[in-house]
Amino acid sequence: MRVLLVGAGGVGTAITRIAARRDFFEAMVVADYDGSRAESAVAALAGDRRFAAERVDASDEAAVAALLGRHRCDVLLNATDPRFVMPLFRAARTAGARYLDMAMSLSRPHPERPYEECGVRLGDEQFAQAADWEREGLLALVGMGVEPGLSDVFARHAADELFDEIEEIGVRDGANLTVDGYDFAPSFSIWTTIEECLNPPVVHEAGRGWFTTEPFSEPEVFDFPEGIGKVECVNVEHEEVLLIPRWVDARRVTFKYGLGGEFIDTLKTLHRLGLDRTDPVTVPGPDGRPVAVSPRDVVAACLPDPATLGERMHGKTCAGTWVRGTRDGAPREVYLYHVVDNQWSMAEYGCQAVVWQTAVNPVVALELVAAGAWTGAGVLGPEAFPARPFLDLLTEYGSPWGMREG
Amino acid sequence: MRVLLVGAGGVGTAITRIAARRDFFEAMVVADYDGSRAESAVAALAGDRRFAAERVDASDEAAVAALLGRHRCDVLLNATDPRFVMPLFRAARTAGARYLDMAMSLSRPHPERPYEECGVRLGDEQFAQAADWEREGLLALVGMGVEPGLSDVFARHAADELFDEIEEIGVRDGANLTVDGYDFAPSFSIWTTIEECLNPPVVHEAGRGWFTTEPFSEPEVFDFPEGIGKVECVNVEHEEVLLIPRWVDARRVTFKYGLGGEFIDTLKTLHRLGLDRTDPVTVPGPDGRPVAVSPRDVVAACLPDPATLGERMHGKTCAGTWVRGTRDGAPREVYLYHVVDNQWSMAEYGCQAVVWQTAVNPVVALELVAAGAWTGAGVLGPEAFPARPFLDLLTEYGSPWGMREG
Repeated sequence: MRVLLVGAGGVGTAITRIAARRDFFEAMVVADYDGSRAESAVAALAGDRRFAAERVDASDEAAVAALLGRHRCDVLLNATDPRFVMPLFRAARTAGARYLDMAMSLSRPHPERPYEECGVRLGDEQFAQAADWEREGLLALVGMGVEPGLSDVFARHAADELFDEIEEIGVRDGANLTVDGYDFAPSFSIWTTIEECLNPPVVHEAGRGWFTTEPFSEPEVFDFPEGIGKVECVNVEHEEVLLIPRWVDARRVTFKYGLGGEFIDTLKTLHRLGLDRTDPVTVPGPDGRPVAVSPRDVVAACLPDPATLGERMHGKTCAGTWVRGTRDGAPREVYLYHVVDNQWSMAEYGCQAVVWQTAVNPVVALELVAAGAWTGAGVLGPEAFPARPFLDLLTEYGSPWGMREG
Repeated sequence: MRVLLVGAGGVGTAITRIAARRDFFEAMVVADYDGSRAESAVAALAGDRRFAAERVDASDEAAVAALLGRHRCDVLLNATDPRFVMPLFRAARTAGARYLDMAMSLSRPHPERPYEECGVRLGDEQFAQAADWEREGLLALVGMGVEPGLSDVFARHAADELFDEIEEIGVRDGANLTVDGYDFAPSFSIWTTIEECLNPPVVHEAGRGWFTTEPFSEPEVFDFPEGIGKVECVNVEHEEVLLIPRWVDARRVTFKYGLGGEFIDTLKTLHRLGLDRTDPVTVPGPDGRPVAVSPRDVVAACLPDPATLGERMHGKTCAGTWVRGTRDGAPREVYLYHVVDNQWSMAEYGCQAVVWQTAVNPVVALELVAAGAWTGAGVLGPEAFPARPFLDLLTEYGSPWGMREG
C-alpha cells in the first residue's frame, strides 16, 4: 500500500507517528499547503525512509491527482479541514485511488425550517457519487476517525454480537480535560466547535427518517467511565447519525456531545451576541481606518491554539456508543467506549489525547484494508465492515476499548 | 451664560433638546469630532438661534481652548467618552472657563493587588489640580450626570434633611428595559459597560478609606420602585464612591449596578474568553492578510447601537440612593430615586430613557450655576452644593424624583 496523507496538522502529524510503528504500507507521502509542516512531520520520524514530504493545495484537484500519480499512491488519506473533503474525494477517484477521511462533506441548513427539517445533510455530496465509485470498483471509506469512525464500529459490533433488536444508538462523547494556566481553553478548534454545535443537530428515527432540532436540544447527564464522571451532553450535528442508519437497524440514532454546562452556556452567549458569525463586521483598524473582520475569527484569536496545549493538559477523553435494546428477550443496555489519557498519549507519541484518538483509527482501518480484512467498493461508512477485526487490531495498537454493561 | 457642549452623541443631543426649552443661557455651541452629528443636533432644534454647530477633536486641548475663546463661552460641558475628560478639563482652565462633566478621569488598577487596593482612582487626576482651579476662582463640577450626579445630590439631601447619622449610603441602579427584536441589546454602550463592570469595584469605609474587591462582588437583590421590581445588583466601580465620602459622613459607601443575572454571566463569559480586551489580536482581514483589531471593538460592532434603540425599547430605568442610619435616635432607611419611562422620554424628547436621564441633570446644574444658586471654586462634586434647589428644579423640568421610606 502506498498512501498519500493530505494534511500535516495535529491529526496528520499524529497519523505519521502511529503509522511509523507499523509495517503494512510501503510508502506514506505527507503533503500540506504549508510545506514546512509536512517536512517537520517527516523529519520527526528519524529516518524512516517510507515517508516523504510534499507541498500541495488541497483545493486543487488536478494537483492532488497528479501527486497521487507521481508517487504511485493507491490510497488518499484526508486529514484536512472538512472544507477540503470534496476536492480531495474527487481527486482520488480521478487518479483511481481509494479514499479515506475522518469527516464528511458539509451540511447546509434547510432554508425555511432549519430546526425541523434537514437541508443538505453531512455526506450528501459524497453519497451522491456512490454509484460511480461502485462502478469503478473503488472504495471510499468515509467518516473513519474516532467520532465518526470508532463510534460507528461500536454500533456495528453491538448489532452483530450484543443485541437481537436495537431501540436506540446514542454516540456519547465526554472528557475531563483541563489546561494549566487557562480559565477557558477548548481542546479542539473553537471555530469547528462553534460550527458543529450551532448547526441544527440531526436525529434519525425509523419511519420518520432524518430530522433536525434546535441547537443544544435534549440535554442529559451522561456518566463517562474511567473516572471522567458525569458530564452534561446535548444533541449536536455529527456524521454518525447520517451513517449508522444506512447499515444498522435501530429505532433511534443520536449524537450527544459532552460539552458540559459551562461550555454550552459560553457557546449560547457567543451566539446571542452574534460573535459566532463568520460574515464580517466593521471595526477600527490599527491606523483608525475601518477594517472588516469575521467575529468568529476574533473569538478564535483570543483563545490559545489547542494543538499547542498538550504539555499543559491533564485528564482523559472518552468516545463511545451507548446502545439500548433486547438480547434473548431481555432488555439490555451497554456503553462501548475508548478512553485516552493525555499523559499517556503525550509520553508515548508526543500528541495530545483528542488528536491522538482521532488519528489512531484511520491507521487501523488502512491496515485492515491493506490486509484485505476490510474490502468493498462504493462510498461506505465504518459500520459497513466487520467490527471484530477492527476492535482487536485497535487493542493490538496498545489502546484497548472497553464495555460497560447495564 | 455661554456654553460649549463637546459631544453630540446620544447624551449630547438630548442635552440640546432639554436645554432648548430653558432660557437661562444665551448661547450653546455644539461641537463633535463628527461635524455632521453636531449639525444634526442643532438642525433638530428648529431655528433656535442660540445653538451653533462646530467640529472639534476633543483630544486637541489647544483647539478646544481656541473654540471656547472664539465663541466667548464661559462654561465647557463635556458629553464625550471618559477618555477625553483630561484634555477637555485642561482646555477649560486654559481658556478660563468653568467645566462640567458626567464621568471623571479614568482609574488604573493597582499593579500588584488589583482586587484589594486602589491604584489610580476615578477622578484622581482631576482632584490633583483642585488647588489650581481654586486659586483661579474657577469651578469644575465633576460627575454631574445622573449617576454620578443626581445620586450624589440625593446623598447630600439625606445628610442635610433626613438623617442625624448615616451608617451606609448605597447607590442602586436598575431597570426593566427590553428591546423588541433583540435577544441581547444593552441600553448603554457595551464598551463602557465592560470598562465599568470589569474594573475592580471600589468601596469606601470610614477608618479604612477606599479599597477594591473582585468584580461582581457582594451580590444582592434590590427591589426597585414603580413596577421595575427585583433585580440582582453587584458592586461596580463608580464615581459616587469616590465623591460622596469627600463631602458627606457615612460609615460605608457603595455603588451597585442592577445588571441582572444574565448580563453578569455574559460579561463574565466575555472576560473568560478575553473578548473584553482592548489590546489587539491578529486575524485575517478582507484580503486574507492579517490585521490587528481590538476584541472589545468587535463585541461592540456585533451589537446594535444603543442610541438607535429608543423606538423599540420598553420599560423604565431607575437611578437612586439608598441610605440607612438614624433620625432622632430611631433607625431609618430610605431610597431616594428618579425613574424615567422610555415611552415618556421618547414621546416628549425623542430620546431613549437612559440617555435622557443622564442628560437632564447637567442642564439643571447649569441653570443653578447660571442663577448663582450653586456657586464655588475648585474641583467639586454635586454633593458639595445644596441639594434642595436642585431637586426642586428637576421637578420643575417635568421629571419628579421620589422617596421610599423603610
